[in-house]
Amino acid sequence: MDRMKQQIAFIECLDRLKLVLRQNLVMDESRRENTAEHSWHIASMAMVLAEYAPSPTDQSRVLKMLLLHDVIEIEAGDTFCFDVEGNKDKLARERRAAEQVFGLLPPDQGVEFRSLWDEFEAGETNEARFANALDRFQVLLQNFNTRGGTWRIHNIDRARVVARMLPIKEGAPALWPQVVKYLDEACAAGLLRELTPEEEQASGR
Amino acid sequence: MDRMKQQIAFIECLDRLKLVLRQNLVMDESRRENTAEHSWHIASMAMVLAEYAPSPTDQSRVLKMLLLHDVIEIEAGDTFCFDVEGNKDKLARERRAAEQVFGLLPPDQGVEFRSLWDEFEAGETNEARFANALDRFQVLLQNFNTRGGTWRIHNIDRARVVARMLPIKEGAPALWPQVVKYLDEACAAGLLRELTPEEEQASGR
Repeated sequence: MDRMKQQIAFIECLDRLKLVLRQNLVMDESRRENTAEHSWHIASMAMVLAEYAPSPTDQSRVLKMLLLHDVIEIEAGDTFCFDVEGNKDKLARERRAAEQVFGLLPPDQGVEFRSLWDEFEAGETNEARFANALDRFQVLLQNFNTRGGTWRIHNIDRARVVARMLPIKEGAPALWPQVVKYLDEACAAGLLRELTPEEEQASGR
Repeated sequence: MDRMKQQIAFIECLDRLKLVLRQNLVMDESRRENTAEHSWHIASMAMVLAEYAPSPTDQSRVLKMLLLHDVIEIEAGDTFCFDVEGNKDKLARERRAAEQVFGLLPPDQGVEFRSLWDEFEAGETNEARFANALDRFQVLLQNFNTRGGTWRIHNIDRARVVARMLPIKEGAPALWPQVVKYLDEACAAGLLRELTPEEEQASGR
């Protein structure tokens, strides 16, 4: 019964992920997306887009990884990808959070779930590369469908978005032409800006 | 490219599940839960509680089933389980919705996803029975952690809740003693009411 108690404590703790707000909006633009529904969305995307994963990929491990990939935000909060300051101590904060959150589970499950999270973060296996690709692709879809979303709100330029999207090229290369198409359309529609020649020179690119 | 377009149309449609509100609350009681985050919660529960599934159970199919089990609510809306009127045409509404939502996908995937939904609804395989058990158990946890939640708000009595929870006894019997314990505690704390002897007589139980 102690084992089940620990499992239920973890399940009750998971509820708090519904309260963690991400920067991007849901597609009707009525509010920001939370991390629990984001996690559901990309796990479902993994089912739909499974055929574009590198070969071989264990799709069951991809689903588990995506369900868990952000639960550390219960303690660490969501860090916006273009927030330079917040990203400085992100890894340390998230590792401490992982110990707290996965530490609620019976030890064998704590180790198993933590290792799925570590695998996602390292991004080295086919499963982790595909999962990371979907994590980026979902944001692209959200932003494209919310008049530029965080790109527009935070005045992000195309070069930074392309750099952010590169894991898609690696983890689900068949999706890459679609990514480029979305970015072209976003630029043409004024939802995403190109660097000015001056900025390009200043940035050394 | 047409195939990928259909897949992305389905993924974009999924976003609308974040806007479908359920009756029960998130655990801090700040708002009602939506169906997307509910789906994430129970898929994660399936990972944690896998050892209590009937044997044999294909856990990967359980995860897929739980990710998809409520997507028809995008078109059909959420029907409260104790809403007698709304439940009269629930099945017909949900079947029409299934055709619309899964019909967005390439035909082979539409058939595959629809059959997972049908399997969940029929509740006859080990996977579907376990998935249904978790769907009920999650509501129990939400209500228990929100001072009785929908039991209290809608003045539901213990006998109706027990009847509603029976799929747990069948699909994850090891969890049943925990269910009874929660209901005992909820009654003792006044979060859930017992039938009066008069009501019991009137109901013919």
